[in-house]
Amino acid sequence: MPQKLAFRMKLIPGFEEEYERRHREIWPELVTLLKETGIIDYQIFLDRETSYLFAFQVIAGEANSQDLGSTEIVQRWWKHMADIMETNPDKSPISVELPNVFDLQ
Amino acid sequence: MPQKLAFRMKLIPGFEEEYERRHREIWPELVTLLKETGIIDYQIFLDRETSYLFAFQVIAGEANSQDLGSTEIVQRWWKHMADIMETNPDKSPISVELPNVFDLQ
Repeated sequence: MPQKLAFRMKLIPGFEEEYERRHREIWPELVTLLKETGIIDYQIFLDRETSYLFAFQVIAGEANSQDLGSTEIVQRWWKHMADIMETNPDKSPISVELPNVFDLQ
Repeated sequence: MPQKLAFRMKLIPGFEEEYERRHREIWPELVTLLKETGIIDYQIFLDRETSYLFAFQVIAGEANSQDLGSTEIVQRWWKHMADIMETNPDKSPISVELPNVFDLQ
């Protein structure tokens, strides 16, 4: 049964176009890693009023992109993005998982 | 090609459990209407820190749940929910569509 997961991150205001541009140019090896990890679907939406980024994932297995932080590629991606996002000391984006309160059945 | 749509609404703080409870008890006729409109998937996630509700929909056709506002069932649902959400004068929830900035391909 695929899991559905949502989390909220935060962009530094003013970098909306840059964030989108970097994601258009996402590294092919990162896409491969996400897919191999079982991430079937992954969308990010921007709230321009608050600079929140709302991420939604559908995951085949147990893993999710938050668990990929030990990989070299993801750590490199974090560093690549750290200048335009609110981050933790290890450069990972501050990410808050959001509980599901409704799921259409 | 199914569309993926996200929008942000806002809960009145303190009504987290009540919001979830009402959605667990969603009217069967409303579920039927959503499905008949082509809404394949519909999840809502709660951000407890900000009281924002993030909604994510996968829609088969052109319509989405925002277009259902002219139906009697949806207007009745809005009234049912209006005491615990930030609403417009017509009792519809204040809802801001969020642009997609990344979609894993």
